[in-house]
Amino acid sequence: MRIQKLTKETKQNLLEDLLKRSPNSYGEYEASVQAILDKVKEEKDRAVFAFTKQFDQADIDATNILVSEEEIEEAYGKVDASLLEVVRRALQNIKDYHAKQKINSWFDSRPDGTILGQKVTPLQRVGVYVPGGKAAYPSSVLMNVMPAKVAGVDEIIMTTPPGKDGKVNPTTLVAAKEAGVDKVYKAGGAQAIAALAYGTESIPKVDKIVGPGNIYVALAKKAVYGHVSIDSIAGPSEILVLADETANPRFVAADLLSQAEHDELASAILVTTSEKLAQEVSLEVDNFLKELSRAEIIEKSLDNYGYILVAETMEDAIDAANEIASEHLEIQTAAPFEVMTKIRNAGAIFIGEYASEPLGDYFAGPNHILPTNGTAKFFSPLSVDDFIKKSSIISYSKEALFKVHNDIETFAKAERLTAHANSVHVRFENEEA
Amino acid sequence: MRIQKLTKETKQNLLEDLLKRSPNSYGEYEASVQAILDKVKEEKDRAVFAFTKQFDQADIDATNILVSEEEIEEAYGKVDASLLEVVRRALQNIKDYHAKQKINSWFDSRPDGTILGQKVTPLQRVGVYVPGGKAAYPSSVLMNVMPAKVAGVDEIIMTTPPGKDGKVNPTTLVAAKEAGVDKVYKAGGAQAIAALAYGTESIPKVDKIVGPGNIYVALAKKAVYGHVSIDSIAGPSEILVLADETANPRFVAADLLSQAEHDELASAILVTTSEKLAQEVSLEVDNFLKELSRAEIIEKSLDNYGYILVAETMEDAIDAANEIASEHLEIQTAAPFEVMTKIRNAGAIFIGEYASEPLGDYFAGPNHILPTNGTAKFFSPLSVDDFIKKSSIISYSKEALFKVHNDIETFAKAERLTAHANSVHVRFENEEA
Repeated sequence: MRIQKLTKETKQNLLEDLLKRSPNSYGEYEASVQAILDKVKEEKDRAVFAFTKQFDQADIDATNILVSEEEIEEAYGKVDASLLEVVRRALQNIKDYHAKQKINSWFDSRPDGTILGQKVTPLQRVGVYVPGGKAAYPSSVLMNVMPAKVAGVDEIIMTTPPGKDGKVNPTTLVAAKEAGVDKVYKAGGAQAIAALAYGTESIPKVDKIVGPGNIYVALAKKAVYGHVSIDSIAGPSEILVLADETANPRFVAADLLSQAEHDELASAILVTTSEKLAQEVSLEVDNFLKELSRAEIIEKSLDNYGYILVAETMEDAIDAANEIASEHLEIQTAAPFEVMTKIRNAGAIFIGEYASEPLGDYFAGPNHILPTNGTAKFFSPLSVDDFIKKSSIISYSKEALFKVHNDIETFAKAERLTAHANSVHVRFENEEA
Repeated sequence: MRIQKLTKETKQNLLEDLLKRSPNSYGEYEASVQAILDKVKEEKDRAVFAFTKQFDQADIDATNILVSEEEIEEAYGKVDASLLEVVRRALQNIKDYHAKQKINSWFDSRPDGTILGQKVTPLQRVGVYVPGGKAAYPSSVLMNVMPAKVAGVDEIIMTTPPGKDGKVNPTTLVAAKEAGVDKVYKAGGAQAIAALAYGTESIPKVDKIVGPGNIYVALAKKAVYGHVSIDSIAGPSEILVLADETANPRFVAADLLSQAEHDELASAILVTTSEKLAQEVSLEVDNFLKELSRAEIIEKSLDNYGYILVAETMEDAIDAANEIASEHLEIQTAAPFEVMTKIRNAGAIFIGEYASEPLGDYFAGPNHILPTNGTAKFFSPLSVDDFIKKSSIISYSKEALFKVHNDIETFAKAERLTAHANSVHVRFENEEA
C-alpha cells in the first residue's frame, strides 16, 4: 500500500480522491427508470409481471408473486443448519441492541392546564428491498428488517427478484422469516420500487422503502422519495484505522483488507503515528493478499483508494479521521477510549484490538447500514428512529391561553397574518368586547 | 364551504385533490439552478457577488457581505419594543420544549468486557436560509434556529438576500440575534445555497442547510443533498379539524381560516360527526370572511382545497384524519384526549378548544416546521434530532470475541467474504494453529 506523510496536502488529495466515488449523473438511466415507474403506477400488477418477464425471465403472476409457506419451508431445507444457528444468535444481538434505541412518547403537564408533548408512532407498513443474484447477503436482510421490527412497524414486506425458475434465494427467504418479515414478493428492480411506492393489486403501498440495490433501484427510490420515505443511498464501503505503535500490524492489515474486498470502489485507510507500523502493515497486507480469494478486487481498491498516512501526532491523526468521516473507524491505540471521546464523525467506531470490523458487520448488534463518503458528518446508522415518526402535542386550558393571547395576536399581526390573530382573539371576544 | 358526506368516494377525491398540490416537474428551472450552483462552486465569492447584483440589485462584496454589529444594533432600533418582548417569551418556550427532545449518548457494558453504545454528536456547522422580501417571518427564524441551538451545534450561520440598499430586514436580524445565530450573510437564492454547500472565501461550508425558500432555493437544496444534509421541502399549509356536536362553530371556523390565509394552495378541512356543526361552521366562515384582510387568498384556497365532511361516526372521522395525515390536526370533541390516542398520522396535534393552531405557530414551544401533504405518515416535525447524528460504538474484549469468532467466520464465509472471515480468524491464529 502507498505510504505517505499526513500533511494538509496529502489529506486534501485523499479527500478529493474519495469524493470521486460519488455517483455522477446517471441521466442515461433516469428516463428508463421513470418509464418503468409510470407504467407500474398506471398498469399495476400487469406491468410488474411484464417487467419481471423482461428483466428476470421469470413467469410471475398473481397466483405466485407472493412467496408461499411451502416455498419458505423448502428454503429451510436448503440452508445449512449451522448457518441458521449463527443467524439466530446474530438476530438476538441485533434485536437487543436496537431495543435500546427505542424512544417513548412524552407529555409535560403544567399547573395552568398546559400539556405539551411528543407522540411517537411507528410507521404502518415498510418495504424492504433485497437484491437478487447468486450471492445472498442474509446479514443485510437482518440489518434492514430488525430496526423496523423493534420500532413496532405493523407490517414489513419484502420484495426480491426471482430467478428464471421463479424461485427466491433460500438464504434470503430464511433470513426474512427469522427476522419476522410478514410477506415476501417476487419482484425486483425499479418495478418493485414502483409497486411498493404506489401499490398494485398484489403488492400493497408502503410508507417507507429501505434496502440496497443496483443503479435502477437507487434511481427509482430517489424518484419516489417524498411520495414515500426512503433510506439513504449507500456508497462504497470504507474503513479507517487509527493506530499507534502499540497496534498489532497483522490485525490492522487484516481489517483494512476486510473492507477492500467489497468492491473496487471500497476504501481502506490507515492513519498512524508510527512509521514502523506503517511499514509492517504494508508488508502484512502483501502477505495476506497471497491467500485471499478476492485478491483481484482488493488489489484494485487498494491501488485506487488505499492509503497509509503517517501523522506527526495523534491529534493530527484524529483531526484527519474527523475530516474523512469514515463509515467504519477502528481505534487501535494504547488508550482507545481516550481517542474515541475525540471522534466527532464516523458511522461506527470500533474500539480496541479485538473489535474487528466484521464483528460489527455480522454479529455484535449495532446496525451495519452506515453513512458513507463523508456523510457521517451529518447522517447516522440505520436505526429504530428511521421507522418511527413524531407528532407534537399541544393542549392549553382557557386560563393558559388567556395569559398569552395578546402575545400571540401581536406576533401574528407583525407577520401580517390577521386570520391567525383572529383565531386566538375569537376565543376571548366576549370577555373583552 | 362545500359540505359533503364522508364516504369512501369523497375521501378518495379529497386525497387526490390534495396530492395535486405536490410540486410537478420543475425541469425548466433545474438547468438554471444547476448553472448557478456550478458557477459558485468554481468562482466562489466572485459568483455570489455577481448573482447578488443580478438578482437582488445590491452591491455586496467581501467587505459588507457579513452583517456587522452596527447593522444589528441599527435593526434593534427599528423593531417595536413590544414585539421584541413577545419574541423573547416565545423563544423561551421554544427552547424549553426542544430541550426535552435532547437524547444522550449511551453505553452498555457486559461482564465479559463487551461495550456497545451509541454516541450522539451535534452537527458542527449549520446554515439557515431566510427568504427576503417585504414580509419578515421572525417566527420561522426562531423555529429553524432553536433546535440547532439546543442540539449544541457549534456554529449557526444564516443567509438572507439583501434589499437594493444592501440592508437586511431588521425583524429578521433581531430574531436571528435573539435566537443566537453566530453570523448573518447577505446572500439569497440558489447562490446562497451553493455558498453554504461548497463554501466560499466569505461564507463557510456547512453540514446541513435548513429553512424555507422559493423554487430556486428548493431546487438548489435538492441538488446539493447528499453533499450536505437538508431539511425536507415544505409544501402548502394544512389544517384538519376533528369536531363533534360539542365544538364551538366560531372557534372551528376561525381556525380553518387561519391556515386558509397562508396561500391559495393551503388546505382547510373539517371532519365532523355533526351535520348541525357543519352548517354553522360554514356560516361562520362566511361571517369572518367579511372582516379578514386576506379574504381574497382565503376564498381561493377554500374553493380549491377547503372541505367540510360529515362522518357517520367518530371512528370514521378519525380514520379519515389518519389517511389525510394533516400538517396540523385540531381535536375539538367532548373527549379530545381519547381521540388523540387513536391518531397515528399528523404533524402537530392540538387538543381541546383552547389549543388553536396559531398558538403552535408562534408561542407554545413545539416546532411549527411540520410535514405536509400526507408526509406525516413517515416524516416528523423539525426537531433537535435533525441537528445531531449518531455513531455506533463497539468494543469487545479478547475473551468476548473468542466466544463468537467461529460464528462470525461462518457468517462471513456464507456470504463469500473471506477477508472478513480472516480479520476475525487472525486474532486467534496462534491459539488454534
